[in-house]
Amino acid sequence: MSMAEALPLTPVGACCTPVTQDVLSAEDAESMAVAFKALGDPTRLRLLSIVAASEGDEACVCDLTEPVGLSQPTVSHHLKILMDAGYLTRSKRGTWAYYKLVPGSLDRVSVLLATATA
Amino acid sequence: MSMAEALPLTPVGACCTPVTQDVLSAEDAESMAVAFKALGDPTRLRLLSIVAASEGDEACVCDLTEPVGLSQPTVSHHLKILMDAGYLTRSKRGTWAYYKLVPGSLDRVSVLLATATA
Repeated sequence: MSMAEALPLTPVGACCTPVTQDVLSAEDAESMAVAFKALGDPTRLRLLSIVAASEGDEACVCDLTEPVGLSQPTVSHHLKILMDAGYLTRSKRGTWAYYKLVPGSLDRVSVLLATATA
Repeated sequence: MSMAEALPLTPVGACCTPVTQDVLSAEDAESMAVAFKALGDPTRLRLLSIVAASEGDEACVCDLTEPVGLSQPTVSHHLKILMDAGYLTRSKRGTWAYYKLVPGSLDRVSVLLATATA
Protein backbone atom coordinates (compact mmCIF):
# COMPACT_ATOMS: atom_id res chain seq x y z
CA MET A 1 0.00 0.00 0.00
CA SER A 2 1.40 3.40 -0.97
CA MET A 3 1.44 6.42 1.32
CA ALA A 4 -1.42 7.97 -0.63
CA GLU A 5 -3.60 4.92 -0.13
CA ALA A 6 -2.90 4.88 3.58
CA LEU A 7 -4.27 8.39 4.12
CA PRO A 8 -7.49 8.59 6.12
CA LEU A 9 -10.61 8.88 3.98
CA THR A 10 -14.06 10.19 4.49
CA PRO A 11 -16.05 7.04 5.25
CA VAL A 12 -18.71 7.58 2.59
CA GLY A 13 -22.09 6.70 3.96
CA ALA A 14 -20.63 5.27 7.15
CA CYS A 15 -22.00 8.20 9.11
CA CYS A 16 -25.67 8.03 8.57
CA THR A 17 -28.96 6.24 8.82
CA PRO A 18 -30.85 5.71 5.54
CA VAL A 19 -32.85 8.63 4.14
CA THR A 20 -36.21 7.01 4.77
CA GLN A 21 -35.47 5.48 8.17
CA ASP A 22 -35.93 8.63 10.21
CA VAL A 23 -35.79 12.40 9.90
CA LEU A 24 -32.15 13.18 9.14
CA SER A 25 -30.16 15.31 11.53
CA ALA A 26 -28.52 18.40 10.06
CA GLU A 27 -25.11 16.79 10.59
CA ASP A 28 -25.97 13.54 8.83
CA ALA A 29 -27.59 15.48 6.00
CA GLU A 30 -24.40 17.52 5.52
CA SER A 31 -22.23 14.40 5.31
CA MET A 32 -24.58 12.59 2.97
CA ALA A 33 -24.96 15.63 0.70
CA VAL A 34 -21.19 15.61 0.07
CA ALA A 35 -21.40 11.97 -1.02
CA PHE A 36 -24.30 12.62 -3.42
CA LYS A 37 -23.00 15.94 -4.73
CA ALA A 38 -19.79 14.21 -5.85
CA LEU A 39 -21.97 11.89 -7.95
CA GLY A 40 -24.11 14.73 -9.28
CA ASP A 41 -21.98 15.38 -12.34
CA PRO A 42 -21.96 13.34 -15.56
CA THR A 43 -18.18 13.52 -16.03
CA ARG A 44 -17.53 12.25 -12.51
CA LEU A 45 -20.01 9.39 -12.97
CA ARG A 46 -18.27 8.38 -16.21
CA LEU A 47 -14.82 8.58 -14.57
CA LEU A 48 -16.03 6.37 -11.71
CA SER A 49 -17.49 3.85 -14.15
CA ILE A 50 -14.26 3.75 -16.18
CA VAL A 51 -12.17 3.16 -13.05
CA ALA A 52 -14.62 0.48 -11.89
CA ALA A 53 -14.46 -1.21 -15.31
CA SER A 54 -10.65 -1.27 -15.25
CA GLU A 55 -8.41 -4.16 -14.17
CA GLY A 56 -8.30 -4.24 -10.37
CA ASP A 57 -10.74 -1.30 -10.15
CA GLU A 58 -7.77 0.96 -10.88
CA ALA A 59 -6.90 3.27 -13.78
CA CYS A 60 -4.03 5.56 -14.77
CA VAL A 61 -5.00 9.20 -15.15
CA CYS A 62 -3.34 8.92 -18.57
CA ASP A 63 -6.18 6.61 -19.63
CA LEU A 64 -8.99 8.78 -18.25
CA THR A 65 -8.72 12.00 -20.25
CA GLU A 66 -9.45 10.64 -23.73
CA PRO A 67 -12.71 8.77 -22.91
CA VAL A 68 -14.31 11.84 -21.33
CA GLY A 69 -12.85 14.28 -23.88
CA LEU A 70 -11.57 16.78 -21.34
CA SER A 71 -8.17 18.25 -20.44
CA GLN A 72 -6.05 16.59 -17.77
CA PRO A 73 -6.43 19.53 -15.29
CA THR A 74 -10.22 19.29 -15.61
CA VAL A 75 -10.17 15.52 -15.18
CA SER A 76 -7.84 15.84 -12.17
CA HIS A 77 -10.25 18.37 -10.61
CA HIS A 78 -13.12 15.90 -10.93
CA LEU A 79 -10.98 13.05 -9.61
CA LYS A 80 -10.08 15.14 -6.56
CA ILE A 81 -13.76 15.67 -5.75
CA LEU A 82 -14.31 11.91 -5.99
CA MET A 83 -11.31 11.35 -3.70
CA ASP A 84 -12.48 13.95 -1.18
CA ALA A 85 -15.88 12.25 -1.06
CA GLY A 86 -14.18 8.91 -0.38
CA TYR A 87 -14.88 7.06 -3.64
CA LEU A 88 -11.31 6.94 -4.97
CA THR A 89 -7.76 6.71 -3.66
CA ARG A 90 -4.74 7.98 -5.56
CA SER A 91 -1.24 6.57 -5.71
CA LYS A 92 1.70 7.73 -7.77
CA ARG A 93 3.83 5.20 -9.64
CA GLY A 94 6.55 6.63 -11.85
CA THR A 95 5.26 9.72 -13.61
CA TRP A 96 1.60 8.79 -13.48
CA ALA A 97 -1.12 8.91 -10.87
CA TYR A 98 -3.38 5.88 -10.52
CA TYR A 99 -6.90 6.08 -9.17
CA LYS A 100 -8.53 3.13 -7.45
CA LEU A 101 -12.13 2.61 -6.40
CA VAL A 102 -12.52 2.42 -2.61
CA PRO A 103 -14.03 -1.03 -1.97
CA GLY A 104 -17.57 -0.77 -0.63
CA SER A 105 -17.86 2.99 -1.02
CA LEU A 106 -20.65 2.88 -3.60
CA ASP A 107 -22.47 0.13 -1.71
CA ARG A 108 -22.44 2.18 1.49
CA VAL A 109 -24.12 5.08 -0.33
CA SER A 110 -26.53 2.69 -2.03
CA VAL A 111 -27.71 1.49 1.37
CA LEU A 112 -28.58 5.08 2.37
CA LEU A 113 -31.25 5.10 -0.35
CA ALA A 114 -32.57 1.55 -0.13
CA THR A 115 -35.91 1.55 1.65
CA ALA A 116 -35.91 -2.24 1.97
CA THR A 117 -33.09 -2.04 4.51
CA ALA A 118 -34.78 0.71 6.54
CA MET B 1 -55.31 10.86 -8.15
CA SER B 2 -55.07 14.61 -8.72
CA MET B 3 -54.01 16.21 -11.99
CA ALA B 4 -50.63 17.07 -10.52
CA GLU B 5 -49.97 13.48 -9.56
CA ALA B 6 -50.92 12.29 -13.03
CA LEU B 7 -48.24 14.38 -14.75
CA PRO B 8 -45.42 12.41 -16.36
CA LEU B 9 -42.32 12.16 -14.22
CA THR B 10 -38.67 11.60 -14.88
CA PRO B 11 -38.27 7.90 -14.16
CA VAL B 12 -35.40 8.28 -11.70
CA GLY B 13 -32.82 5.63 -12.31
CA ALA B 14 -35.01 3.80 -14.78
CA CYS B 15 -32.74 4.88 -17.63
CA CYS B 16 -29.44 3.45 -16.74
CA THR B 17 -27.21 0.54 -15.96
CA PRO B 18 -25.44 0.59 -12.57
CA VAL B 19 -22.29 2.72 -12.28
CA THR B 20 -19.96 -0.25 -11.91
CA GLN B 21 -21.58 -2.54 -14.49
CA ASP B 22 -20.03 -0.95 -17.56
CA VAL B 23 -18.57 2.33 -18.76
CA LEU B 24 -21.48 4.76 -18.70
CA SER B 25 -22.62 6.39 -21.91
CA ALA B 26 -22.71 10.20 -21.93
CA GLU B 27 -26.52 10.07 -22.08
CA ASP B 28 -26.91 7.72 -19.10
CA ALA B 29 -24.39 9.76 -17.14
CA GLU B 30 -26.40 12.95 -17.78
CA SER B 31 -29.64 11.36 -16.55
CA MET B 32 -28.03 9.82 -13.50
CA ALA B 33 -26.24 13.05 -12.58
CA VAL B 34 -29.61 14.84 -12.33
CA ALA B 35 -30.83 12.18 -9.88
CA PHE B 36 -27.72 12.46 -7.69
CA LYS B 37 -27.41 16.24 -7.91
CA ALA B 38 -30.93 16.59 -6.49
CA LEU B 39 -29.73 14.60 -3.45
CA GLY B 40 -26.50 16.60 -3.17
CA ASP B 41 -27.90 19.21 -0.82
CA PRO B 42 -28.48 18.79 2.93
CA THR B 43 -31.78 20.68 2.95
CA ARG B 44 -33.19 18.52 0.18
CA LEU B 45 -32.10 15.34 1.96
CA ARG B 46 -33.79 16.49 5.14
CA LEU B 47 -36.98 17.44 3.27
CA LEU B 48 -37.05 14.00 1.63
CA SER B 49 -36.56 12.28 4.98
CA ILE B 50 -39.34 14.33 6.58
CA VAL B 51 -41.74 13.49 3.76
CA ALA B 52 -40.73 9.81 3.96
CA ALA B 53 -41.29 9.82 7.74
CA SER B 54 -44.77 11.33 7.37
CA GLU B 55 -48.08 9.45 7.32
CA GLY B 56 -48.55 7.95 3.86
CA ASP B 57 -45.15 9.26 2.73
CA GLU B 58 -46.84 12.64 2.25
CA ALA B 59 -46.42 16.03 3.92
CA CYS B 60 -48.00 19.48 3.68
CA VAL B 61 -45.58 22.22 2.68
CA CYS B 62 -46.90 24.01 5.78
CA ASP B 63 -45.17 21.35 7.89
CA LEU B 64 -41.87 21.45 6.03
CA THR B 65 -40.61 24.99 6.57
CA GLU B 66 -40.20 24.94 10.35
CA PRO B 67 -38.08 21.74 10.64
CA VAL B 68 -35.51 22.98 8.13
CA GLY B 69 -35.60 26.58 9.38
CA LEU B 70 -35.96 28.17 5.95
CA SER B 71 -38.50 30.43 4.24
CA GLN B 72 -41.34 28.89 2.26
CA PRO B 73 -40.02 30.17 -1.12
CA THR B 74 -36.64 28.55 -0.41
CA VAL B 75 -38.28 25.30 0.68
CA SER B 76 -40.53 25.35 -2.40
CA HIS B 77 -37.46 25.82 -4.61
CA HIS B 78 -35.82 22.74 -3.10
CA LEU B 79 -39.05 20.74 -3.39
CA LYS B 80 -39.30 21.66 -7.07
CA ILE B 81 -35.80 20.25 -7.69
CA LEU B 82 -36.83 17.01 -5.94
CA MET B 83 -39.99 16.90 -8.09
CA ASP B 84 -38.08 17.57 -11.32
CA ALA B 85 -35.71 14.72 -10.45
CA GLY B 86 -38.69 12.40 -9.92
CA TYR B 87 -38.52 11.88 -6.15
CA LEU B 88 -41.69 13.77 -5.19
CA THR B 89 -45.12 14.52 -6.62
CA ARG B 90 -47.17 17.55 -5.65
CA SER B 91 -50.91 17.90 -5.26
CA LYS B 92 -52.93 20.87 -4.09
CA ARG B 93 -55.73 20.40 -1.57
CA GLY B 94 -57.42 23.56 -0.35
CA THR B 95 -54.83 26.27 0.18
CA TRP B 96 -51.90 23.93 0.74
CA ALA B 97 -49.60 21.90 -1.47
CA TYR B 98 -48.83 18.35 -0.41
CA TYR B 99 -45.66 16.52 -1.40
CA LYS B 100 -45.56 12.76 -1.68
CA LEU B 101 -42.60 10.43 -2.11
CA VAL B 102 -42.66 8.63 -5.48
CA PRO B 103 -42.78 4.92 -4.58
CA GLY B 104 -39.59 3.13 -5.58
CA SER B 105 -37.74 6.26 -6.67
CA LEU B 106 -35.03 6.02 -4.01
CA ASP B 107 -34.68 2.28 -4.49
CA ARG B 108 -34.14 2.73 -8.23
CA VAL B 109 -31.28 5.13 -7.56
CA SER B 110 -29.93 2.85 -4.84
CA VAL B 111 -29.63 0.04 -7.38
CA LEU B 112 -27.47 2.23 -9.63
CA LEU B 113 -24.80 2.23 -6.91
CA ALA B 114 -25.07 -1.30 -5.59
CA THR B 115 -22.21 -3.39 -6.93
CA ALA B 116 -23.82 -6.63 -5.71
CA THR B 117 -26.45 -6.33 -8.43
CA ALA B 118 -23.93 -5.52 -11.16
